Amino acid sequence: MGRALAAAALAADHPTVVWNRTPGKADTLVAEGAVLAPTAADAVRRARTTIACMIDYDAVRANVADLAFPRGSTFVNLSSGHSGEARAMADWAARRGVDYLDGAILTPAPTIGTPAATILYSGRHPLYQRNLVLLDAFGGTGIHLGDDIGVAAAYEMALLDLFAMSVGGLAHAFALATAEGIEPAAFARFAKGIGGLLPGLADRFAEQLAAGRFPADVSSVASAASALSHVGAAAAAHGIDTTPLEAVRRIVGRAVAAGHGGDSYARLARFLTEADDAATPAG
Amino acid sequence: MGRALAAAALAADHPTVVWNRTPGKADTLVAEGAVLAPTAADAVRRARTTIACMIDYDAVRANVADLAFPRGSTFVNLSSGHSGEARAMADWAARRGVDYLDGAILTPAPTIGTPAATILYSGRHPLYQRNLVLLDAFGGTGIHLGDDIGVAAAYEMALLDLFAMSVGGLAHAFALATAEGIEPAAFARFAKGIGGLLPGLADRFAEQLAAGRFPADVSSVASAASALSHVGAAAAAHGIDTTPLEAVRRIVGRAVAAGHGGDSYARLARFLTEADDAATPAG
Repeated sequence: MGRALAAAALAADHPTVVWNRTPGKADTLVAEGAVLAPTAADAVRRARTTIACMIDYDAVRANVADLAFPRGSTFVNLSSGHSGEARAMADWAARRGVDYLDGAILTPAPTIGTPAATILYSGRHPLYQRNLVLLDAFGGTGIHLGDDIGVAAAYEMALLDLFAMSVGGLAHAFALATAEGIEPAAFARFAKGIGGLLPGLADRFAEQLAAGRFPADVSSVASAASALSHVGAAAAAHGIDTTPLEAVRRIVGRAVAAGHGGDSYARLARFLTEADDAATPAG
Repeated sequence: MGRALAAAALAADHPTVVWNRTPGKADTLVAEGAVLAPTAADAVRRARTTIACMIDYDAVRANVADLAFPRGSTFVNLSSGHSGEARAMADWAARRGVDYLDGAILTPAPTIGTPAATILYSGRHPLYQRNLVLLDAFGGTGIHLGDDIGVAAAYEMALLDLFAMSVGGLAHAFALATAEGIEPAAFARFAKGIGGLLPGLADRFAEQLAAGRFPADVSSVASAASALSHVGAAAAAHGIDTTPLEAVRRIVGRAVAAGHGGDSYARLARFLTEADDAATPAG
């Protein structure tokens, strides 16, 4: 991802200094006109704006936190992490007199520098504006979500939550289908329809959560409990790991026990944030 | 659902006998022209084709299995269950000289009798053909998947697997977003984009599973492990139950340990069906 960001900056004629923990990884960028810094300290010292994109905030801290950023320079951290980590990084930057923007890249590396890229940003709006010419080089849609430095990371985590569970469900469903002798292409034809239901469900969740009312117009929490039992039995019959289904089923079961069986699925989102549920997370 | 099916049959001018375990539930159908049977035995005795739609196969067995179906009549079971249950029900029907079709309704009750309905069927094709005038009354798309009586239930379970995990993910993601102070409507705008990724992912899974090759063109199993750790930490910080994420993370972690970290997500589907994984389901 770092390589894609640097290549996009170069393609937009921004003078670009690159550094990577693994020597040799920046060779193609140097061929495209980037200046290779021998150390991270050197890269940071030479840049008015430093962009970091690493596997997590721990990696950023390990490689960047002790370096001498020029006062008044900007640090844009596009690494993956949660809002608490973004806030801690902002505190660190403030103590150093470094301007800090946090961001989250929602689309894969090949989208960077193309119209398909989507990147979320948070931090002071004037700072975002001042860096917009560079950030626009990364392509697609850049969205400034607010001055709260943690908000981009908050969105990223909640979206990754949905993505990981959906992809986990896709893998589990294909496993069950193939164990039942269904051809993958035949199953995909129907699985695509499930994906098509999610946008409408997301809108319904939002409406019901905002209104605080959860009428089960279509399907109820109780029906989900029944469905999850059937599916778990089917998966277990093929020796397929049922723990993800079981974890969802236990949450649904607790929601039914708490009196929400007749409510819509959106009630589960509020149930998960309620203190009485949080008090028994393994129940 | 039973009420919706009977109403659709009546609307298409099929003489319809109805019975429900809860007295009074059939009143509106009687007003629409249905004949109310005092017992399930009476309903079955009077019908050339009996349609059952109950919460599960246990309920069907408890209410229907001991009844005297007229020889040569047809029993269409649209209740929810897995392929083994459908096969057992077919064996029972065969011993009674009753023709048996199994089916699975993929869309909610309000779609029945409208173009939006989707119903899967399995069983002998001539039998399906013979009942098509009645089954067409249920509306939308009726799909005969094959002579194997278990195949409709197999599809239903795998699709419910994907649906339950996706909806569970949606609830979990909205919980995390609202705990982070994000307005539900603002989050829905982005969550819809994740749903939009699933159809393309379903096709990619199918292609890679059919080919038996899993190049990680976009994202790898190892990157999912990292993302799930971040999201789990974010949810735990808000006291939100992390067990579904944790269950997916453990599967992903075992896949990485088995050497699949550099493969695409589709590799997880095959991994879940592999015997060495099934041997340690709680690992």
